[in-house]
Amino acid sequence: MGFHAWAAHREKDALKPFVYEPEPLGPHDVEVRISHCGICHSDVHLVDGDWGASSYPMVPGHEIVGTVAASGPAVKSLALGQRVGVGWQRGACLECEWCVSGQENLCAHEAATCVGHHGGFAERIRVDGRFAFPIPEALSSENAAPLLCGGVTVYAPLARWARPPMRVGVVGIGGLGHLALQFARAMGCEVTAISTSPDKQSDARAFGAERFLAARDPKALRAAARSLDFLLSTTFIPQDWESLLRTLRPNGVLCLVGAPDDPVSLDAGAILGKQLTVTTSAIGGRPAIREMLEFAVRHGIAPKLQLRPLAEADAGLDTVRKGQARYRVVLAA
Amino acid sequence: MGFHAWAAHREKDALKPFVYEPEPLGPHDVEVRISHCGICHSDVHLVDGDWGASSYPMVPGHEIVGTVAASGPAVKSLALGQRVGVGWQRGACLECEWCVSGQENLCAHEAATCVGHHGGFAERIRVDGRFAFPIPEALSSENAAPLLCGGVTVYAPLARWARPPMRVGVVGIGGLGHLALQFARAMGCEVTAISTSPDKQSDARAFGAERFLAARDPKALRAAARSLDFLLSTTFIPQDWESLLRTLRPNGVLCLVGAPDDPVSLDAGAILGKQLTVTTSAIGGRPAIREMLEFAVRHGIAPKLQLRPLAEADAGLDTVRKGQARYRVVLAA
Repeated sequence: MGFHAWAAHREKDALKPFVYEPEPLGPHDVEVRISHCGICHSDVHLVDGDWGASSYPMVPGHEIVGTVAASGPAVKSLALGQRVGVGWQRGACLECEWCVSGQENLCAHEAATCVGHHGGFAERIRVDGRFAFPIPEALSSENAAPLLCGGVTVYAPLARWARPPMRVGVVGIGGLGHLALQFARAMGCEVTAISTSPDKQSDARAFGAERFLAARDPKALRAAARSLDFLLSTTFIPQDWESLLRTLRPNGVLCLVGAPDDPVSLDAGAILGKQLTVTTSAIGGRPAIREMLEFAVRHGIAPKLQLRPLAEADAGLDTVRKGQARYRVVLAA
Repeated sequence: MGFHAWAAHREKDALKPFVYEPEPLGPHDVEVRISHCGICHSDVHLVDGDWGASSYPMVPGHEIVGTVAASGPAVKSLALGQRVGVGWQRGACLECEWCVSGQENLCAHEAATCVGHHGGFAERIRVDGRFAFPIPEALSSENAAPLLCGGVTVYAPLARWARPPMRVGVVGIGGLGHLALQFARAMGCEVTAISTSPDKQSDARAFGAERFLAARDPKALRAAARSLDFLLSTTFIPQDWESLLRTLRPNGVLCLVGAPDDPVSLDAGAILGKQLTVTTSAIGGRPAIREMLEFAVRHGIAPKLQLRPLAEADAGLDTVRKGQARYRVVLAA
């Protein structure tokens, strides 16, 4: 009667079938029968133990869509059989100042979906029902899955900082970046894609970019000096920050959502003259997730993805590990 | 008939009497007979050639108050004999997007009062009259002088980022910091002073700080973890940024107005979880200067200063160079 899942049994291990006994269903919990789960680069970091946060066996997966299969007595707003999504967070205290202001992502007691718990590379999962979001009718389950983490991670900072007709640059055109291009374009911004992969240019234009800059071409970056208002960096690959900051106009903002492996070194003199800002954004709270799902429906925003059966979880993860996803891999039950 | 001033004739030179022929009075220019000029730490940097921006002989001084002694034919809103102040900027293009939106400090063609021109350690100066600000009746000239640069440099970022009842920390309690404490307190914020000089504690409390943290006491900084919303760093002395960033609460902002000599290194992982922002602020535009002067009058904000005669300009500069000003030295004609 256990839950069937795919787990890594130690750092960098291949994902193998794994059965575990779920925790008892709490009063606010729902059990979700999973139909789809996106693969995020964070899953690779967790499987590989890059962040020192993993305990094994570990079941990755935090871009989950499925249907409510059971629910605790306190769950009022979700019906059995209803289609829901779960993202990076499976719970929070819901009492601190951050939770009560809809910034549950900043709660010091947040529970992550697949850190310290088993995630969505599985047939089922149990999470706090208050972190299971109804999926709008118009969104297919496979398209909804990557929005739950990748989507809100780029939507929230764009909603906070960007406004038309700002010139927005998206650094890193992968699972997050290809959604960011679409969101920024739909928000009325002028969009530039910045990528270390020159072969992504035509895709980037299809996602909404009006301009493409090769991140490893210092001449191209120099020519783009003082041309952008907001830079959203979605990559963990260390960048030439000095050149990127030069592309910003006065009052410009660089926002990091992917944590680069190396520290970002800021020459205060260089950023002071233009009054630049470097900020960060960590996924998004519950209001941001609901708003993002509605915005995606209204503007027809959808990931470009490759579907693979859950039984190919390990091969799917490896595609993401090698940076070969175009642009999201989604596992289907 | 030249202008009598005090100038450095080469890097780190003592200030000596110097007479120069002023440029002709342009249609928008005013000639100001200087009664007071504050000494800012930037004057030390310029005299000492720290920024590679100085040409010699150089007359420092950019916190000027005096009276209009002559004006070009296009000057309409200033009367002869009227009391005016001049800050870091003596001119700008007044046509670019930054100028027309009141952000003249971001103009690519800004003219600095004492970079490439002779400044305010002098009996007279000629500047664009549109950068000479009427001094409110209720402000004494000696108190007004340090507000023109030091005052607006801390007022502008506080006005942009802080709002009651935010917990504001001011790093560096010198010429800028002691004004920042007063402005932040008057804005309804809860104010903490952070200084490398423990002997400034009682002064800091008199300026409005409710709490004092010794910047070189890691234990005190650790105990203050997650206690501040906004950190305004007014110092160019390199700080323990990692510990300072730890004092910020989620969504917290660190704003640099003094450019530290060393780059600020940000561990993206550390700032990402709390969604922190690092920003910068460069003096302020004309609307910010007017607003700041009115705000200072309304709230009785004034520098604590030592008056010295202009003839002691060199000794006054040396007091600032050694960090011994308590808290601003102002030269008087």
